[in-house]
Amino acid sequence: MTTTDVAAPGELDKLDEAGLRLLFTEARTANTFAPTPVTDEELSAIWQLAKWAPTSANTQPLRVLYVQTAEGRARLVPHMSEGNRAKTATAPAVAVLALDNAFHEHMPTLLPFRPEMRDMLEANEQMRTRLSSFNAALQAGYFILSVRAHGLAAGPMGGFDADAVDGEFFADNKWHAILVVNIGHPGESAWFDRLPRLDEAQVVRWA
Amino acid sequence: MTTTDVAAPGELDKLDEAGLRLLFTEARTANTFAPTPVTDEELSAIWQLAKWAPTSANTQPLRVLYVQTAEGRARLVPHMSEGNRAKTATAPAVAVLALDNAFHEHMPTLLPFRPEMRDMLEANEQMRTRLSSFNAALQAGYFILSVRAHGLAAGPMGGFDADAVDGEFFADNKWHAILVVNIGHPGESAWFDRLPRLDEAQVVRWA
Repeated sequence: MTTTDVAAPGELDKLDEAGLRLLFTEARTANTFAPTPVTDEELSAIWQLAKWAPTSANTQPLRVLYVQTAEGRARLVPHMSEGNRAKTATAPAVAVLALDNAFHEHMPTLLPFRPEMRDMLEANEQMRTRLSSFNAALQAGYFILSVRAHGLAAGPMGGFDADAVDGEFFADNKWHAILVVNIGHPGESAWFDRLPRLDEAQVVRWA
Repeated sequence: MTTTDVAAPGELDKLDEAGLRLLFTEARTANTFAPTPVTDEELSAIWQLAKWAPTSANTQPLRVLYVQTAEGRARLVPHMSEGNRAKTATAPAVAVLALDNAFHEHMPTLLPFRPEMRDMLEANEQMRTRLSSFNAALQAGYFILSVRAHGLAAGPMGGFDADAVDGEFFADNKWHAILVVNIGHPGESAWFDRLPRLDEAQVVRWA
C-alpha cells in the first residue's frame, strides 16, 4: 500500500478542539464503567487503528489478548494486584497488552528490503529485547489513544503479576505481558481528581 | 485540577474521520521537510498536549530536548547514524526524547497520597529502571501523535549513539536519550511506500 498521494508538501491539517479534548486534555483514566457492553468489533477496530502508528524498523512487537469470556476473566483477575481486581472483574472489556519476544521472525515480511534483520536479531538478544520493550511500550501509548478515539474510556494498569499472566495465557509463545487495560464506557464517579503534571521547565530543555 | 465534570457516564464522543486520518490511517513518517520553520511556540504546545496522557503511578519520566540552534544541531548530528544525519541536519526542528532516571524525585508532588514512593524507588533501581523505560516509551508514543495533532509531520529515529548524545547534552543530569524525532511540514517526496502491518490474527488473541 502506498500513500504517496495523501498530502502535498506542507498541507497537513490540525486536530480540531473536539479531538484534542477527546484524546488528551479532557480524557481521563476511568476507574468505574457503565454496564454497556464493548463489542468484539469495537475491540478489533481499536487494534486496527493503533497498528498504523510507527515503530522502529517497522518491528511492531505489541500483541493484544482481549479477555472477553467469563472463564478468561476468572483466569486473569487473581493475577492482578489486589487494588485492581474489582475493576478488572467488572470492566466490560479487558486487554492484556504484551510484547512478543519472537517479533523478529516477521522481519522479512515487515522490512522486506532488510530481511537479514531476522538473523541479526536472533543472534543479538540484547538488541532484540531493547527493540521489543521500547516499541511495545510506544505502541501501548498508541493503543490507549486509539481506545479513546473509539469513544471508550481506558483504564491502564501496571499492577499485576506479569510472570503469572505469562504462565496463564502465554505458555505456548514468547509473549510477555506489559500492561492491562480496562475498556468501557465510563460509569458513575469514574474519574479521580486529576493528578498534577510536571512544569514545562522540569521537562523541556532547549539547545 | 479536577475534571469530574467533563463527561457523564457513557457520554464520550468518537474521533471524527478527519482526526482518524490525521493521527493514524493516513499519517506517515516524513523523510523530507519543507523549509517552513517550526516555532518554539509550536514545540512547546506539542509537549503541553502530550503531557496529559496517562503514565503508571503518574511517573511522567519523559523529558524533551528541543535542538533549535545551529550550534545545537552541530552537536547532535555527528551522533546520529550515518543514514539519519542529512535528515537531522535539515529538519526544521529536532526533539531528543529522553527518560529521566531521577524521575522519582518528583513523586511526592506527582502522587501526593504516596510520597513514600520516592524513597522506595531510590532504593530499588530495578523497579525504577523498569518504570522509567516503559513509561518514557509510552509517552514517546503520545508525543509522536501530538506532533501530528499540531499539523506537523514526525520523523522518529532510533538510529543514533545514545551514550554519545547523553554525554553531549545530559552530562549534568540523569537523562538518557531514547528517540530522536525530526519535526516539520512534509517536503517533496516526503513519504516512502507504506510498509506492511501484521495481520490481526498474528497480533490479536481472545480468551
